[in-house]
Amino acid sequence: MSENMRVSEKAYIGKNTIIKEGVIIEENAMIGSNCYIDYGAIIKENVTIGDNCFVGSNCVLGEYLSDFFEKFINNKHELYIGDNAKIRSGTIIYGETSIGINFQTGHNATIRENTQIGDNVSIGTLSDIQGFSEIGNFVRVHSNVHICQFSKIKDYVWIFPYTVFTNDKLPPSDNLKGVTVEEGAVICTKSIILPDILIGKEAFIGAGTLVTKDVPDDCIYLGYPGKIKGKTSEIQDKETGQILYPWRNRYKRL
Amino acid sequence: MSENMRVSEKAYIGKNTIIKEGVIIEENAMIGSNCYIDYGAIIKENVTIGDNCFVGSNCVLGEYLSDFFEKFINNKHELYIGDNAKIRSGTIIYGETSIGINFQTGHNATIRENTQIGDNVSIGTLSDIQGFSEIGNFVRVHSNVHICQFSKIKDYVWIFPYTVFTNDKLPPSDNLKGVTVEEGAVICTKSIILPDILIGKEAFIGAGTLVTKDVPDDCIYLGYPGKIKGKTSEIQDKETGQILYPWRNRYKRL
Amino acid sequence: MSENMRVSEKAYIGKNTIIKEGVIIEENAMIGSNCYIDYGAIIKENVTIGDNCFVGSNCVLGEYLSDFFEKFINNKHELYIGDNAKIRSGTIIYGETSIGINFQTGHNATIRENTQIGDNVSIGTLSDIQGFSEIGNFVRVHSNVHICQFSKIKDYVWIFPYTVFTNDKLPPSDNLKGVTVEEGAVICTKSIILPDILIGKEAFIGAGTLVTKDVPDDCIYLGYPGKIKGKTSEIQDKETGQILYPWRNRYKRL
Repeated sequence: MSENMRVSEKAYIGKNTIIKEGVIIEENAMIGSNCYIDYGAIIKENVTIGDNCFVGSNCVLGEYLSDFFEKFINNKHELYIGDNAKIRSGTIIYGETSIGINFQTGHNATIRENTQIGDNVSIGTLSDIQGFSEIGNFVRVHSNVHICQFSKIKDYVWIFPYTVFTNDKLPPSDNLKGVTVEEGAVICTKSIILPDILIGKEAFIGAGTLVTKDVPDDCIYLGYPGKIKGKTSEIQDKETGQILYPWRNRYKRL
Repeated sequence: MSENMRVSEKAYIGKNTIIKEGVIIEENAMIGSNCYIDYGAIIKENVTIGDNCFVGSNCVLGEYLSDFFEKFINNKHELYIGDNAKIRSGTIIYGETSIGINFQTGHNATIRENTQIGDNVSIGTLSDIQGFSEIGNFVRVHSNVHICQFSKIKDYVWIFPYTVFTNDKLPPSDNLKGVTVEEGAVICTKSIILPDILIGKEAFIGAGTLVTKDVPDDCIYLGYPGKIKGKTSEIQDKETGQILYPWRNRYKRL
Repeated sequence: MSENMRVSEKAYIGKNTIIKEGVIIEENAMIGSNCYIDYGAIIKENVTIGDNCFVGSNCVLGEYLSDFFEKFINNKHELYIGDNAKIRSGTIIYGETSIGINFQTGHNATIRENTQIGDNVSIGTLSDIQGFSEIGNFVRVHSNVHICQFSKIKDYVWIFPYTVFTNDKLPPSDNLKGVTVEEGAVICTKSIILPDILIGKEAFIGAGTLVTKDVPDDCIYLGYPGKIKGKTSEIQDKETGQILYPWRNRYKRL
């Protein structure tokens, strides 16, 4: 039970990777080159991390699924995280999950099992991805967003703080149907999306909206409950007249 | 200050209990048999945990009450947790609290002092029970719910994500009156309950509702502010005609 | 990599300060006298903490800014925390930040870089101060509040749970304009404040309000979207007739 036993001899650690005090790395974990694993991070079995990754203090990677609790045995549930990840302190990511390159999290984010995440995705502080979901490429989930099970989020979607997705029309039940968000949609702060809703391509959901119906492509949708208020593709900068959406024509995300 | 000193010789540890690296167990803590205490969990004085319990990484059990700060002395405030608990990583539970059997938490839940919790209760990820509250049996508090001080939640209640209970009509004040939720009520996602409200038996509060008045038994209550929209006991499955509430007639919770 | 190396010999630790097992203190950290640093707290370089402070389990003080990630080198970003702080477990505070005396946090609060906080401020459990902001004296931010970048909060302001400040009118963009809250304003639970809004002195924002326009001084503002409903200075206790605001004439905060 000495400090030296905390990093398993059966783990693979790439060259030039820095491991700080108090880190746990279990056997069958694989960590790439030029990584930095900060104080007290916990990396469990069957976790693979690419090169040039940062894992912040007190993160838990490869967290146990429910089957662990039967006999306190960690069955094989792989977690794969691509190169250049920045996983900030306190983040918890389960096994049975796959994440692309250039991934980022804020602090104390939770990502549960059976989540497939593309490249260049960011999940903000305190956001909670409940698992059994797909997230595309270049998606940004800001702070304190709740993505329920069985959600699909396509490429270039932005979701702002305290937005909540739901999946159960007559709770509690096992008839769970998540939310689907098409490419390029923007969902502003503190929106609620009811179960089984489809949000169309390049839709723009205003702050504090209750989304009770499917939202067509290219719609501005606003209110409580929400209503269609115009076309996203007609939103202009008041001073310059510049057409502002799709946002990726004018804004380079970090 | 060696690793071996981290588990006090004056703590009681039941047989077959597994204690992982970095765990702290203070004196006068009692842990049952066949438990699993994961990396870096902290179990302070006067904590009693039953048999077959899981305590996740970086949990803090027996957290200090405010009287600790006067002289940095931990007065005796007992925390009791029954058999078969699954306390997921990052959960913080204070002293002066009692919890029944088959308890579960998500990640980074907080449960403060003077909370009485019955059997078969689940408190989700990031939920914050502010203490001085009573929670019955078979209650499920989903993710990111805020239960203010002086709340009472009876048996079989479900509360969905981002619901907030309040207790102060003219804040800030010391005239705090919490929310009471009667047996079998269901409160959907992102509702706000104003102070001193009574939510009746088997009431159904729709998603995103602002509850400004007492809600009678068996009422569907919806809107912002909420209004009575029908009877819970008349909600049917559209296809089969099955009466859906009380939910426990048709749904077995995990 | 022994336990003894966890507290740098180049750190300054004041007399009578207690340091519990598993604490990390890096070089160039300075900790005052009569402090209590609880299990597993992490205090990085360039952090200065005053006398009589409590730092809870698993806190991270002096967390890395984004420039760390370029070469995994911690550039000099000072964090200063005044005397008598109570920083509860799991709190994360970045460098390049300054905090006055008698500071308190709840659990798992996050305070990012370039935040200036006055004296006698409290930041609740799970609240997220995104940085580049100013917070005055005697401000209380309750649980799970989101203060966006470029916000200014003056003295004696109270902000209740799940309130969210926003700063981007046409997101995503770099044209960020935060919220300004003048002295003595009270913002109740679960309000949303749109970007670039000014909330006037002693304004009272009711629970669940969507604030879409500037709020004049001394206004009661309520609804979704909010409307002016009266004067704060005329709110009376129904039984005694006492004028209730400014709250500091009748209520002594802890």
